[in-house]
Formats: sequence, structure tokens, C-alpha cells
Amino acid sequence: MSAPQSQRKVQVGVLGATGTVGQRFIVLLSSHPYFVIRALGASSRSAGQKYKDAVRWKQSVPIPKSVEDVEVRECKADQFEGCDIVFSGLDSDAAGDIEKAFRAAELAVFSNAGNYRRDPQCPLIVPLVNPEHFNIIPAQQKALSLSKGFIKAFGPLETVMVTTMQAISGAGYPGVSSLDILDNVVPLIGGEEEKMEWELSKILGGLSDDKAAFALRHDSKNPLAVSAACNRVPVLDGHLECASVRFAVRPPPSLQAIKDALRAFRSEAQDLGCPSAPQQAIFVHDQPDRPQPRLDRYFQNGSGVNVGRIRECPVLDIKFVCLVNNVSIGAATSSIINAEYAVAKEIV
Amino acid sequence: MSAPQSQRKVQVGVLGATGTVGQRFIVLLSSHPYFVIRALGASSRSAGQKYKDAVRWKQSVPIPKSVEDVEVRECKADQFEGCDIVFSGLDSDAAGDIEKAFRAAELAVFSNAGNYRRDPQCPLIVPLVNPEHFNIIPAQQKALSLSKGFIKAFGPLETVMVTTMQAISGAGYPGVSSLDILDNVVPLIGGEEEKMEWELSKILGGLSDDKAAFALRHDSKNPLAVSAACNRVPVLDGHLECASVRFAVRPPPSLQAIKDALRAFRSEAQDLGCPSAPQQAIFVHDQPDRPQPRLDRYFQNGSGVNVGRIRECPVLDIKFVCLVNNVSIGAATSSIINAEYAVAKEIV
Amino acid sequence: MSAPQSQRKVQVGVLGATGTVGQRFIVLLSSHPYFVIRALGASSRSAGQKYKDAVRWKQSVPIPKSVEDVEVRECKADQFEGCDIVFSGLDSDAAGDIEKAFRAAELAVFSNAGNYRRDPQCPLIVPLVNPEHFNIIPAQQKALSLSKGFIKAFGPLETVMVTTMQAISGAGYPGVSSLDILDNVVPLIGGEEEKMEWELSKILGGLSDDKAAFALRHDSKNPLAVSAACNRVPVLDGHLECASVRFAVRPPPSLQAIKDALRAFRSEAQDLGCPSAPQQAIFVHDQPDRPQPRLDRYFQNGSGVNVGRIRECPVLDIKFVCLVNNVSIGAATSSIINAEYAVAKEIV
Amino acid sequence: MSAPQSQRKVQVGVLGATGTVGQRFIVLLSSHPYFVIRALGASSRSAGQKYKDAVRWKQSVPIPKSVEDVEVRECKADQFEGCDIVFSGLDSDAAGDIEKAFRAAELAVFSNAGNYRRDPQCPLIVPLVNPEHFNIIPAQQKALSLSKGFIKAFGPLETVMVTTMQAISGAGYPGVSSLDILDNVVPLIGGEEEKMEWELSKILGGLSDDKAAFALRHDSKNPLAVSAACNRVPVLDGHLECASVRFAVRPPPSLQAIKDALRAFRSEAQDLGCPSAPQQAIFVHDQPDRPQPRLDRYFQNGSGVNVGRIRECPVLDIKFVCLVNNVSIGAATSSIINAEYAVAKEIV
Repeated sequence: MSAPQSQRKVQVGVLGATGTVGQRFIVLLSSHPYFVIRALGASSRSAGQKYKDAVRWKQSVPIPKSVEDVEVRECKADQFEGCDIVFSGLDSDAAGDIEKAFRAAELAVFSNAGNYRRDPQCPLIVPLVNPEHFNIIPAQQKALSLSKGFIKAFGPLETVMVTTMQAISGAGYPGVSSLDILDNVVPLIGGEEEKMEWELSKILGGLSDDKAAFALRHDSKNPLAVSAACNRVPVLDGHLECASVRFAVRPPPSLQAIKDALRAFRSEAQDLGCPSAPQQAIFVHDQPDRPQPRLDRYFQNGSGVNVGRIRECPVLDIKFVCLVNNVSIGAATSSIINAEYAVAKEIV
Repeated sequence: MSAPQSQRKVQVGVLGATGTVGQRFIVLLSSHPYFVIRALGASSRSAGQKYKDAVRWKQSVPIPKSVEDVEVRECKADQFEGCDIVFSGLDSDAAGDIEKAFRAAELAVFSNAGNYRRDPQCPLIVPLVNPEHFNIIPAQQKALSLSKGFIKAFGPLETVMVTTMQAISGAGYPGVSSLDILDNVVPLIGGEEEKMEWELSKILGGLSDDKAAFALRHDSKNPLAVSAACNRVPVLDGHLECASVRFAVRPPPSLQAIKDALRAFRSEAQDLGCPSAPQQAIFVHDQPDRPQPRLDRYFQNGSGVNVGRIRECPVLDIKFVCLVNNVSIGAATSSIINAEYAVAKEIV
Repeated sequence: MSAPQSQRKVQVGVLGATGTVGQRFIVLLSSHPYFVIRALGASSRSAGQKYKDAVRWKQSVPIPKSVEDVEVRECKADQFEGCDIVFSGLDSDAAGDIEKAFRAAELAVFSNAGNYRRDPQCPLIVPLVNPEHFNIIPAQQKALSLSKGFIKAFGPLETVMVTTMQAISGAGYPGVSSLDILDNVVPLIGGEEEKMEWELSKILGGLSDDKAAFALRHDSKNPLAVSAACNRVPVLDGHLECASVRFAVRPPPSLQAIKDALRAFRSEAQDLGCPSAPQQAIFVHDQPDRPQPRLDRYFQNGSGVNVGRIRECPVLDIKFVCLVNNVSIGAATSSIINAEYAVAKEIV
Repeated sequence: MSAPQSQRKVQVGVLGATGTVGQRFIVLLSSHPYFVIRALGASSRSAGQKYKDAVRWKQSVPIPKSVEDVEVRECKADQFEGCDIVFSGLDSDAAGDIEKAFRAAELAVFSNAGNYRRDPQCPLIVPLVNPEHFNIIPAQQKALSLSKGFIKAFGPLETVMVTTMQAISGAGYPGVSSLDILDNVVPLIGGEEEKMEWELSKILGGLSDDKAAFALRHDSKNPLAVSAACNRVPVLDGHLECASVRFAVRPPPSLQAIKDALRAFRSEAQDLGCPSAPQQAIFVHDQPDRPQPRLDRYFQNGSGVNVGRIRECPVLDIKFVCLVNNVSIGAATSSIINAEYAVAKEIV
């Protein structure tokens, strides 16, 4: 369809435009080099209003002038005709039926909704994309990048133990009550540990068979044991993880080899010149107390993975700290990079 | 010396009485059934002043009337004559020489100072006590209680992996700058991981040889692997830990057997009727999102260990969440229970 | 009816027992000297369940044993027969019709619900009480105590300017989203400024005519100007206020006279020996940085008013800082003191 | 000296380069259109080291490549030869003697240090600048801009009452202990209220005589009464203020006239095209719950003043909420704009 090289503009729509994720899409898209907002969709209650009147704006920049007076539409496919791409910031509650209808109308939807009734990783989310080349939009992008970094260099992982300290924005808005989290840690995020253990097992476990394509079945020759403990902490944005891993390869790679491999890792989105991709996919910190959520979550606009404290683990091989911006690379930015990738590959 | 049964009062002194730990000692001691504050010591700058003028009081109850006008003394042994027991809230900087001098004067010092130049677990801290019966005041009391609970029932542990989320009060006052911790997690507490790994290895590893006495050498027949990752979180009091353990015994005990054993665990301090000991040494929570620092840290005056979310670990045997009040059982309350124990045993 | 002197027990019920305020009522009542919980009411969804199964318990002490297995009832008057007093922790949404029905059934309801469709101060809330003696349960108890302290000694106030920094618990549960308040202040609490200005004008303005009875109409001879600015701050419990006032009397009283008058102030609830009343109704702090929400909100179980920094105001007469625990004296404790007062006066 | 039009580069030095303010200077200067960092000064302990080794970097972007390997110098004037301008991020402790020495060496110093032994507003801070045109760098820039906005349009103010909720970064690093401020408000900032009352009286009171020059004496014809109450809140950056003012002119201007005047206000720095000046000096918010510190403090890179909730005050004329980024327009950015202004005026 559209080639970014020629700077041909790509018309995009945003579903759930008045919500938190929708607002972030609008901020990111309003300064994008070739995506142009053509249509904004929200609930029927908002439809017909000017965007600035329908939204309770919560971003740290004012509403972009270009969308202030745009009339909000209903989230129906015929309202988004002429859009090459539709970004969805809908809740999983609403996402199911609406996104299905858009798919039926052959509109490419890039969605953040982790719709639990279906496979959150599967091509359903990007329905028109060739699954051989573009079949996973990971909820846990960080794990993917990191693991790809590890695996490209050293082969499969055998064991992963991870304790997460997850930001409140991960629960959406209004999400976590301030009465639950101020001066506190909540050591339970419903369903999150099972999801992480299952997704990591699937993604990492399967990689050894077919490293290029992220095969979706578990590889019996490389059983992977994953144990996750998930906590909610009083941090606005940025999920921090303390992880320990054991490699299949013996002896395990040296700490220096691991640092070098992570720093050298490049994703295909970078090589294709996707404008929202980070310069450095995995940034390895040398300062012993980094990464920290508040200090490092906006580095590279939150589009990279931050790793630090790579050191030996007395139980497994290595342990380290990992930080990912759950609202950027973990959500809106990720969808935008995926769309840029699809544009670059001329899939959309 | 003194028998609590007869309610004979025990005269006590407090070193570092104007500091944070000293203030907590004073709050706890001012309502104690048989400890009576006889002398308060602080820096020579404060000596000679009334306590209420020397202290910058930070507790949530007013200064006890009984100490308001007490004249602060210098931390010299001759100023504490007549004290049966001396509690020390001194920083490790000051603690070394002062506590040594008190020991030389044959005054029993119960100290919170983890003095890193020496063995923080060793009888040096309680110098006049028979080491066969009373040789460890753990910095990590929680680990001890928990592990004793496990080990009494199921034998030694083989592997422990733990990620901590530690409260800011663990760093003393002024300690952690608000600019470092608000809306943040700091994934490094200098020296803490090494200390935890070493202490746990020593304490738990050695238990299988001589369960009664906490032998101080590592047991080569039962090598213990410990890996710790320590984080500072924006929580005032209460260290939360996500732990996974593997038992030596195969097959491992069932989840129910573990819960039962932890609930049944009693410490000797409880059996002796120490008034500051908790009713329940290890409280096992059934609510799936507990323990939480803010909600559970003051339960039983912070003198017990809270455990929750005991569940199977896909990598080791079980994983669970543990909460200990670092300023109560982790510090002042712990010293007071130790002193009560010594009184009950007629050691002091 | 019941005389506390004879320790005759008073049977009480709790409406909205599973909510935040209801849980606090239960904690306070479970250790009360003469109130005995007889019935717990909640939504029809919870009715029929054991309390421990119906509630998502959020208190820092475990559920009292005495109520764990109590069967939750519907909030209907016939379910509360035999209750001498009913405490209501219902939201204002639900409170209107239910409390009306209870009143019709001649059950004395002590409610926290500030039901905005009606007069939040009026006897409607305590419908069976003689309005000459017991007609106001202020939402802003602090203002009342303080102003009574001022006015008893110095006559009416002329001008009040107040800026509040209000705790998140004031908005109920789930109330304020953590995404709105962490690392932030929200300079708007909908309707709160108007409410404060109106209530203070009414209560204080009217006092000069009939000091004993809090006449409900404005006194034209003593016009009172009140200006309030209300902010939500990331504090769990405890509303802090910076106030400046001007007295009608010229010259204004001295700072020392004001401190003395506030310290000397006693409420009738204290004189009657109400067990939940504070020892000191207004505690005047001398430390220049007190009161502080976290340090002082639980002093006297949160049943008193904390005042500090009484100093001259370059614009009006004096300025000071005031702290009131919005969940104790501002809510549950206040209702309980009111009920104790009614019992002592033999009104109920 | 240097004309920005011709893009001639201006060589600058930074004193206190390893501290918090120094780090912010470096971040801002590293992307400045015509200031070029030539020399970095710090304590003699750091001198001789590479900047990246001497600093404990706390910013949310990595150390700029251009300064990583710069050798840190001592803060002596001869080490800064060739610098056209020197920015000082020194503490007031160190600032006095060092800045005096630099002034003696005829180096233009733009300092953040509010040196309390001297007049914090006075030309001493910018010693080589013509005092008729450039004599005040306000610690309370917000007050200045706002009041200039008011006064240009409506003449002098008569009464100002203000309650501040000030960010922790205002206290420097490490500054406020996390144990003092988490879940808390501290209603005292030593000396701050007196400073605000005195500075505002001086600056605003004097304006009516000589609006162009900020005459430094109080204007007896226009007595100004100012009352301030200052609080520290758990917010990282951004001082929020609730203010009420009374104008001298009767009747007072309408709310709409005030909004219009504030929106129309332009500072000379804007007119001169200073690149770090905000597009809009005073941004008037229409959303009723704005400005908020976390959402609005970085708008326009924190270089503007945010005002909202302009409404009538029942006691004075109007009340409103004001937000100023204390680390941008309140500190480093302010110094840089001042330097740009001096460059544009060819003063430096």
C-alpha cells in the first residue's frame, strides 16, 4: 500500500479514543511522520461530540490542535472507511465484538486489548497479516526482545524465575484504587503469573525449533520451566522485574558475553527504519542501581528494554534487573511500531 | 536475677535514645509490664538536656510523660550503673566502641546495630549470654522463624530464591531520600543481597547438624544454595519477600502440610510467656492478596511473621509471600523479646 | 433506655457492613464497652452469606472472631428488630431510601452518609433525637470543635480562609484512582468548597444568637465570610487544613489566650464520660512542624482535633494548621460518640 | 558580545556540575542552540576525574556524550577562562565565596543559589548586569510573572493570601527524607513563609511606583498585605499554590478580564526570542481540575506558569490555583533564560 519512503501519508483511525490508551495513541500519532488521524471512535454516548468535549484529557501535553474539534464517531466499521489502519485502545470488554466486526470489514486493527477469551498473542489481533511473518504481538514485549537477544546468541533457556514489580498503569484507568496501593505493595495480580508462565513457556520454549517464526507450540526437546511472582507497586509507569535464568548450553555464557549480545541485539523493526522503533532495542545499564522505573522508563520514548545488574546467580546461571515501559513498548508504542512494520513490509 | 512472675521490675537503659530506634525502644518500654527505664544515653551534644528538649520526636504517640524530663546522659558505662539491661539503638558507626565498653563493664547490651565489621549474628552482641543457649539474634528474624518452621517439620532446605521489596525505614533516618524513592523502585541495596545469601546459608545450612543450637558452620552434607535480589520500594515499614524454596526431602511436603506446620510452629519465647512475643509466631493468611505491608505490618504489634500465597513453584517446590515488620520484629521488638527471654531464663 | 453505668449492653446493628466504613464500625464496635453487634446488613448479593465470606476485608486487624460467622442480612428494618441503635456505613446512593425506611420503623440510625440531596447537618440523619439538644452531626466535626473552642472564649468569628489538603480515604473506596493522585495534588474536590463555605457560614454564623443550640439560620448581625480551597493529596487518612481567621472582637485575643482556650475546651461528650470521646478534644501541638497527617492522625484513636502553628496572620488575625482524622472523628468514631451521647442522655 | 542571530556560539561553564542542579544545567545546555559547554567545575574531590566517573547521574536521559569524558575542574575562576557565561548549581553553602571570586574575575555568573546571608533577589547574583534593566532573578518567578500579568492590566494588588503545596525537589538532594514525607504533608518549611511574604511585599508593593524597574523599596502609598502558609507534599516536582488576592482598584476586574489579561501577558524574554522562553508565559487552564503538578509541570518544558480555577473569592476578590515547575522556571531554566536575555541584550 503505502511506502514511508515516499512520505505518502497513511490514514489511521483510533477506537476507544477517549480512554487512557486512546489518548496516548493520539499524542503519539499527532506528531508521527506519516500516520495521519482520520477518524476517532468512542462510545455512542460520546459520538457526535467534538473530541475536546467528549474526552477527560489526562495527558501531560494539551490536546493536539488537530483533533480538538474532530467529531467523535461510533466504533462501527462503516464510520472508518478510508482508514488504512485502525488502532484500538478499547478495553477487552468492548474489544471483542467491535474488533471482530472491523476484521469482517477487512480493516486492519492494531489492538492493545488483551482479550482473555482468546489467545492474546495470536494473529486474531492483526487479522489481515500473514501469520508466517507477523504473528505475534507480545503482551510481554520485553521478554521477547530479551529472550531473542539471549537466544540468538546462546540458544534456548532452560529455567526462568522472575519476580515482577508492576506499575499501576498496567491495570488501566481507574484501575488500582489509591487506597490499595499508597505506602503498600500488593503481592497478587489476578491471572498475571499464570499468563506470564504460559506465554514465556510458549514463546521461549518454541523458539529452538524455528527461531525465525516463533512457532506456537512448545518444543518438547527444550522443556522450559518458568516461575513468576507478580506484585503491584506504587509506581506510575514501568514494570520492573528481577529475573534469574539458566541456559541450556553448558558451560553458560560469561557475563561479558551476555552483555555484549544484548547490546548487539537489533530487531527487524529497527533494520526496516520504523520511525517509532528505539535506537537501541536493549539498553544495558552499567550504573549498579539502574534501571529504575522513574528514571529510565521514558528513555528512548519508552520504546526500548532496559537491563541492568547482570550478575551471577548462586542458584541458576545469571540474574538481572529488567525494566519495560508498560504504556509505551508495552502498549501504544508497540502497536504503532507493529503498524509501521506492516507498512514497511507492505502488508497493510 | 529477676523473675517476671513476681513482677519484680527490671531496670533498663537505652543507648541512642534520641534516634529513631531509640524512640521506638522508649515507646515500647514505657508500657512494658516489668522493664522500667532508668537511664537514657545519647551523644555528648544532647547529654545534660531534658529528653523532650534533646529529641526530635517522630513517633505517632506523644513522648511518654515518664521520660519527658529525664536528663539525657552520655553513652558511658558508668552512667548506666544500676541498669540490669541496656538496649542499644546506636548506629553501627557509633555502636562498635560504645558497646565494647559496656561489655567490658559487664553490662548486658541488647543491640540493633548490625555492625558489619563483626559477625552480625554472633554472641558478641549479647556478650554475657551463654552461647549454647542464646547465641543468635538474627538480623533476618523472619528467615529464622520461617525456616525453623519448615525445618522442624520437614528437614533441611536445599534451595532458596528470594526477591525482597524492602521498606524505607530499613535504611534508618534520614536514610532514603524522597527524591530517590517516590514513584520508584531502587533495585539495589548495597551489600544486602550478599548478607542475606551468606546469613541464610550459614543459619539454614547448619541446622541439619545440630538443630537445637544453630551451629555456626556450614553443613557440607547439606549444601544450601541461596540467591537474593533486594529492592527498595516506597513503603514505610514492612519488608515483603517473594520466595521459592526446594526441600531436601523427596517428595516434597504438600502445601497443606506446609501450612499446618507453619501455623503450628511455636518459638521458645512464646512458651516462656515473654510478654512481647506474638501469640502466633507465623501467621498464615488465606486471603489470596495478603500479606500486604500496610495492612499487615502492625498485626500482633508487628512481632509475628506473616506468610501467604503458599503455592506450588514450577521451578522449585513451593513459592510464597512473606512479610516481616522490619522495625518491630526486625529491630526494637526483637531486642526486647530477647531481653525478656534472657530474663525468663534467668540469664540476665 | 440503657444506662452505661450499669453496663447494660446496647444491641446495635450495622448497615453497609461489608464496605469500608462498615468494616471500621465493626472494628470499633467489637471492642466497645457496652455496644454489642446484633445484626449486620449489606446488599442483597451478600445477604445469607457468612460475614467472612461476604466481605473483602481491608482492615489492619483480622476480622473479629465474634462476627466471622454472622449471617449477613438485607438492609431492611424488620431484619434489625431488637437493635437499639443502627449504625449506617451506606453510601449516599443507597442511604436515602434505606435510612428513610429505618426511620419510619422508629429505629435510631447514626449515619455517615452525607446525603447531598438533603441537608447533611440536619436531624434527618438522627431522626428520633430531640433537635433542641442533639441536632447536628457535622460532616466537618473539626470546624465545630475548633469554632466552639474559639467562640466560647472570644465570641463570633468574622472571616475564615481555609485551604484543605484532604486524604484519599475521604472519597470512599475505590474512590480516587492511584493514577490520579500518586506524585500529584488535585486542586479540586467537586462540591467540597461550596459545602464547606455554606456549612461553616451556617454553623458559625448562627452561633452568636444562640450559642448553646447551633441555631440553623444565619445571623445577620454577624455576617461571616468564608472562603475555602480544597485539594486532594496523596495521604491515606487525615485532612490537613491551613486556616486564617479574623475575630469580631477588637483587639483580637492574644496567641497565648487562644492556645489556652483551645486546650481548655471540653465537649459535652467528654463530660458525660462517653467512652469513645477523646481525653483532650483539641490537642494543641508545640512542635513547630506538627500536626502532620501520618504522625498525628491516630493519636487518641483519631477522636480529637489536632491544632498547631498558631501564629499571627499578616492579613487576618491568626493562622494555624488543623488536622482531623476523617475516618475516625470525621466518620465512624463520630457516629459512635453520637450514639454514646444519646445513650448517656437516655435519648435512645 | 555574542549575537544569537548569527548563531555565534557562546562558551559556558557550569559550577557544581555533579549536583542535581548542575546535572539539569548539563541536560538543558547539551541541546541548546548556541550555548556550548566549555568547562565543568565541582569539588576538589571530583576535580581531575572524567565527568562520567565523578557524577552520580540521576537524570532520566543518559549523560550527554559530549560531556562524558570532560575532565572536571576545580571551581576556581582561572579554570573557567574563555567562558562567556558561567552557570552555577552550587549550594548556598559553597556559593558565597566561589561566586564572589568569579565576580571579582569579571565572569558573568548566573546562579540558582538562594544565598540567605544576602539579598536573594539582588544584582549580586548577576553581578555584571546593568541593574536598571536586569536586576532581579526572582526565587519566586511565578509570583513575578503572574503579578506582572495582573498589574500591567489592573494596577497594584492590595492583599495576597497563599497556601503552598511544595514539591520535595525544592529542598535539594538528598533533602527531604522519605520517612518524613511518604503518606504525609509537612506543614512547615523553615523560613519559607517569611521569605515569600517579604519578597512578595517588596516586589509587588514597589511596582506601582516604577513598573519598569522593580524598585526595591516598599511603596507606602500602596501597602500590600501578604500571608503565606507553606507545606511540603509528596510530589517530586512542581509547586502548587492556592491563592486569593484583592486588587486596589474598585470595582475589581471581572474574571473574564483577568483570564484575558493573563493569557495576553508576554515577557520581554519572549519578545526577544530567547530560545528557552515559553511560547505562552502564563497558561490559563479551562479544565476545572487543572493545573496539577504531575500532569502540567513539564508543559512547555516547565518554563511557563500554569494558572487555573480562577473564580470569585467570598473574602477577597478572586482566588485561583497556580503551578510552577520549581526545577525549571524556578531554577535551571530560569538561569538559562536570564543568560539568553543578557546575550540578546548584548549585556554579556
